[in-house]
Amino acid sequence: MSFNSFGRIFRVTTWGESHGPAIGATVDGCPPRIPINEDIIQSRLDRRKPGQNKFTSQRREPDKVQILSGVFDGYTTGAPVQMLIENTDQRSRDYSDIADKFRPGHADITYWQKYGIRDYRGGGRSSARETASRVAAGSLAFEALKVLNPKLEIFGYLVQMGTQSIDRTRFDKQHITQNPFWSPDPIAADIFSDYLATIRKSGSSVGALIEVVAHGVPAGLGAPIYAKLDADLAAAMMSINAVKGVEIGAGLASATLTGEENADEIFPSESDIPTYGSNNAGGILGGISTGQDIVVRFAVKPTSSILTPRRTITKSGEATEIITKGRHDPCVGIRAVPVGEAMMACTLLDHYLLHRGHIGWTDHSNQ
Amino acid sequence: MSFNSFGRIFRVTTWGESHGPAIGATVDGCPPRIPINEDIIQSRLDRRKPGQNKFTSQRREPDKVQILSGVFDGYTTGAPVQMLIENTDQRSRDYSDIADKFRPGHADITYWQKYGIRDYRGGGRSSARETASRVAAGSLAFEALKVLNPKLEIFGYLVQMGTQSIDRTRFDKQHITQNPFWSPDPIAADIFSDYLATIRKSGSSVGALIEVVAHGVPAGLGAPIYAKLDADLAAAMMSINAVKGVEIGAGLASATLTGEENADEIFPSESDIPTYGSNNAGGILGGISTGQDIVVRFAVKPTSSILTPRRTITKSGEATEIITKGRHDPCVGIRAVPVGEAMMACTLLDHYLLHRGHIGWTDHSNQ
Amino acid sequence: MSFNSFGRIFRVTTWGESHGPAIGATVDGCPPRIPINEDIIQSRLDRRKPGQNKFTSQRREPDKVQILSGVFDGYTTGAPVQMLIENTDQRSRDYSDIADKFRPGHADITYWQKYGIRDYRGGGRSSARETASRVAAGSLAFEALKVLNPKLEIFGYLVQMGTQSIDRTRFDKQHITQNPFWSPDPIAADIFSDYLATIRKSGSSVGALIEVVAHGVPAGLGAPIYAKLDADLAAAMMSINAVKGVEIGAGLASATLTGEENADEIFPSESDIPTYGSNNAGGILGGISTGQDIVVRFAVKPTSSILTPRRTITKSGEATEIITKGRHDPCVGIRAVPVGEAMMACTLLDHYLLHRGHIGWTDHSNQ
Amino acid sequence: MSFNSFGRIFRVTTWGESHGPAIGATVDGCPPRIPINEDIIQSRLDRRKPGQNKFTSQRREPDKVQILSGVFDGYTTGAPVQMLIENTDQRSRDYSDIADKFRPGHADITYWQKYGIRDYRGGGRSSARETASRVAAGSLAFEALKVLNPKLEIFGYLVQMGTQSIDRTRFDKQHITQNPFWSPDPIAADIFSDYLATIRKSGSSVGALIEVVAHGVPAGLGAPIYAKLDADLAAAMMSINAVKGVEIGAGLASATLTGEENADEIFPSESDIPTYGSNNAGGILGGISTGQDIVVRFAVKPTSSILTPRRTITKSGEATEIITKGRHDPCVGIRAVPVGEAMMACTLLDHYLLHRGHIGWTDHSNQ
Repeated sequence: MSFNSFGRIFRVTTWGESHGPAIGATVDGCPPRIPINEDIIQSRLDRRKPGQNKFTSQRREPDKVQILSGVFDGYTTGAPVQMLIENTDQRSRDYSDIADKFRPGHADITYWQKYGIRDYRGGGRSSARETASRVAAGSLAFEALKVLNPKLEIFGYLVQMGTQSIDRTRFDKQHITQNPFWSPDPIAADIFSDYLATIRKSGSSVGALIEVVAHGVPAGLGAPIYAKLDADLAAAMMSINAVKGVEIGAGLASATLTGEENADEIFPSESDIPTYGSNNAGGILGGISTGQDIVVRFAVKPTSSILTPRRTITKSGEATEIITKGRHDPCVGIRAVPVGEAMMACTLLDHYLLHRGHIGWTDHSNQ
Repeated sequence: MSFNSFGRIFRVTTWGESHGPAIGATVDGCPPRIPINEDIIQSRLDRRKPGQNKFTSQRREPDKVQILSGVFDGYTTGAPVQMLIENTDQRSRDYSDIADKFRPGHADITYWQKYGIRDYRGGGRSSARETASRVAAGSLAFEALKVLNPKLEIFGYLVQMGTQSIDRTRFDKQHITQNPFWSPDPIAADIFSDYLATIRKSGSSVGALIEVVAHGVPAGLGAPIYAKLDADLAAAMMSINAVKGVEIGAGLASATLTGEENADEIFPSESDIPTYGSNNAGGILGGISTGQDIVVRFAVKPTSSILTPRRTITKSGEATEIITKGRHDPCVGIRAVPVGEAMMACTLLDHYLLHRGHIGWTDHSNQ
Repeated sequence: MSFNSFGRIFRVTTWGESHGPAIGATVDGCPPRIPINEDIIQSRLDRRKPGQNKFTSQRREPDKVQILSGVFDGYTTGAPVQMLIENTDQRSRDYSDIADKFRPGHADITYWQKYGIRDYRGGGRSSARETASRVAAGSLAFEALKVLNPKLEIFGYLVQMGTQSIDRTRFDKQHITQNPFWSPDPIAADIFSDYLATIRKSGSSVGALIEVVAHGVPAGLGAPIYAKLDADLAAAMMSINAVKGVEIGAGLASATLTGEENADEIFPSESDIPTYGSNNAGGILGGISTGQDIVVRFAVKPTSSILTPRRTITKSGEATEIITKGRHDPCVGIRAVPVGEAMMACTLLDHYLLHRGHIGWTDHSNQ
Repeated sequence: MSFNSFGRIFRVTTWGESHGPAIGATVDGCPPRIPINEDIIQSRLDRRKPGQNKFTSQRREPDKVQILSGVFDGYTTGAPVQMLIENTDQRSRDYSDIADKFRPGHADITYWQKYGIRDYRGGGRSSARETASRVAAGSLAFEALKVLNPKLEIFGYLVQMGTQSIDRTRFDKQHITQNPFWSPDPIAADIFSDYLATIRKSGSSVGALIEVVAHGVPAGLGAPIYAKLDADLAAAMMSINAVKGVEIGAGLASATLTGEENADEIFPSESDIPTYGSNNAGGILGGISTGQDIVVRFAVKPTSSILTPRRTITKSGEATEIITKGRHDPCVGIRAVPVGEAMMACTLLDHYLLHRGHIGWTDHSNQ
């Protein structure tokens, strides 16, 4: 069951609410003898954290992680790793006026309908703050993958913000970390900057499309039929706050293709993985990795916390209006980039361990 | 783990290969005292089965289901229900020439890379024939939902075939079952017919976009954070053969929306579920159902079995070409419609049982 | 969840009722390229099957297994293996008089209380016939272990039948398969024979204590804290019909020992596993195998189907009496021996795969 | 997988080592709106904690629990409950001399063999300190059960300590909490006191047998075949440190009984649960609760930390001797009593929720 867990061998359970004492991740099944420490995790958390620039939430949290278990002398021991992040800047007063009203587009109403009780101080459990726990868990996955599969590289970036998209002919991987939008297109980064400034000024918000690529994945990861690598990635990405769609490779556009256009032709190669004429498959066939780049995209809806009053109802069902003041990102999709990377890392590590358990690790591609 | 299982309480394990003696579904966790028999399952299977018209594979399988366990005197007992479908029309000779070549776009190469052994008679385990087992399991879910939630209605339809789409202003729910394409738009049905005839004649194939709607779902289904209803639906749909993308509600288009456009306003209503100004959320907020229609779309890529020769390699890595003759659908997406419905039914039933277990069943929406 | 499944990577789901059309096991997660066929499975099933001699149930079932999936050209493919055994000798008339009465000591009343519906033809799902599915699944586990861990040996035997016990000083492993009671003590075998003849003549039944040993298990199997090897073995054995107690190593007698008596002293050895002064631990410390013999015992209660009338109630709650005629074993514990071996094999294979997934396979014992 | 988790809906993950910064329990799936606070948990922890009298370890830990998530305004919210207990009295110096030697009877050697890395400061992850996390999780289960099943009562007690047993004719439930040994027999309590004083003085240790009873359990809990209530209880108890055997009802003695002696006769009753002539079944038939008392016993081996030198080997495989000074209980079984109660509570709550999910809650016993 495990409503708050994902993964099979590398199994992550996140816990905590945005305005409780702390949040964290309990990670079970990490292989032993993986070098890890708080600084490594911290550096990844810092990439996601709010308050970094004018385009992300002004909530200033140090987001300081503590490792409470599972690590000894700088190495994982194989026991569960507990990572805790204190909530130091809760300011629960910001939220007190929404205790009785449901914010449209937020999970306030559904948590109430489901549980009959709700931590109304911010999003509570449904807050995007939960994604910090994913990034912490992902840090561990990244370090384990470094040991198990050193040539693996995972990187995410923004391909679209609202009505503005990158131009893939200008794709520059180095540029991704050199602008606050994770844009691989330097010109799009400038466009995003102006565009988002306007959105922010108007008290509005806007959606985004994020792409995450895994390069250097061995062929053979993924376990058909219901633990397919793409099915697991779809669930992993869809579980991120505000995500409404997930694509692999050609994705939704596959619907418009013909068989001739779609099937990636295969050619001999020197390496143990053949060469492909294209990658419409996004690196996955029949739920199993081909050895090509794994390419996943997901759409993040605009945050529903905006300054324009929206019509809603109270807990007792009466009509009212609401403005969500708080401290919010005009484009939450930006901060979803490191979260998407973390989910990719966790999913791949888990499938690496699964494959090793079920099959061992023999490459049969040239037998 | 359970590579071949999905669901938590209502747990489906499918088994079998396209050219082995039989395929089937082992369903555990079905509530007891649900009326079921082979005729009910058969009528659902018949909607999916090949050979029904010139637009689907000419493989003629009676697809006759047998219930081997878990049902007594016409009712489920709470024990696992084993449903078996014999493979009567295997014709394995059709496939013998592909024993040594990998069909591009198919899972031949990845199964080989992963397992080092492959049932080369057709798709083996990765064949779309596996989806018959899903439909059988879904039949059971439909019957259980009828008892537990009589007003629930699930229906799927084609919204796009290759470059051709339906016009939603002509949406006629009654029409869906009156044309071989599950088109809710009578005019689009005619267009699809001509379009697909051309595709078929040219030995090509084309993709499709399917939408599945669940109407009458109670508020409160879905279990955050990692058993979110939308995350589970995304995995369920992505696990279907040839699916490359999944959307909920506004889906990928959310990326282009502003906060004002996206957040569905809420209004008082007479019923226990409020009225919403729109349904961009696709009936799910924070992973929990709102009581609005749940709307899921998924894209099915064109089958890679086409008559145009494609370049590929042999098991020993040498360059070659392949033409896939066999008996194949020019648009496999058509037959994915009842499969999508089945996955929706299984997922909703499972979440219904999960909610009942974790929370009981009290509606707090108007407390 | 998976009420009818056990194991994590090597995952067995059994299905079927004693008087339905068939029973079987759906095995997911078996490693690929394991040689297997129906004859191998059949030879293990034949060790368990009833009707072999006057001391076991006279129900004569050929118990003929069919492999329906997951095996190609004599090897497992990594896909689920479906094994089906038809019920050919149901004789449901034998049981018709018990449709309305609950047999004391049987699960008739609890199935009724839980499910509100009951397959009254024999034990239905709770029949010991279900254990044939375990033996079929175990056959697969045995073959996989042969490949993965050739020096592993698993064998079970009776150590006690009712008031009669073996004398361990006469332990002769070869004798186990040379008498119908799996007795390792030739003299005890004769005693059991006379004793059971008396029990059978009086229409009574008697319990038994079975020991299962795994020799050659590598050190390091088992995953603390809640997937301890001993905890998994305890659940595996306790899940067998009629089992009421499970012990590891010194077992319940540990309660009477002192620390000096109990802790097995450790000595240097030539091999990668040290020498131990004793094996009170039963080969498991902290839930992990030590490399010593794993020793598990379980007690099987006497079957409750006896010829002496017992007081009971009807479904409507009225007092009545019942005699269970049917065809029953005077000591069901005898047939539990191969079942215990099968559960040991399944559990060890699963932990082997788990360990390989989580840790890989490096022996650190002499680092 | 989830090596460090147990339960299906009510799912407990414990984490932490004896000498790390903290230990704790992450509890997912607790029903919402259960009243809970730190004082309630603390009072249960205090029953287990060391340093209470001369018969338990002199390690003095306040064992102060903090709730970090999942509770709002004194009630559970349905989100994961994180409970943290700091390790304030680690004194790791006590253990520094055992960094290189394996203590016989402890898990030092197997953790090393499995993981190749070991937190040698005390038992690390295998320390009995982990059981504090179980008691914390159990507190939550107890409170949830109070709401869901108010008449349920769970209580554990010592039935045997080394060679000394209670006399069941003197059973006095009230006395259990009035002596430091959880003895229900006042005279045995005195005997235990003298006996243990001798053991302690000699620097030795002794095992114990604990019985845990659940009274007022409804009929119908437990999910055959592989989630049987008794199988789950066996695993739950066997997973407790130092447990080597588990029995239900007549337990191992069933092996000696005849069918007439064993099968509990059934009689009409006024209540919805019939009257039984005896309870050899320990309240469970076919894995499902009968409504009688559930009776489980488990044997705890003597701690292997004793003052007599024992022969062992070093990490490099050389012969040596070891004396375990530390602060240890002469009879760890005493402190296992509240742990066994906690495991019973967690298991029953989980099965209550499972039953509610799978079946709903209708009692059919008198239909």
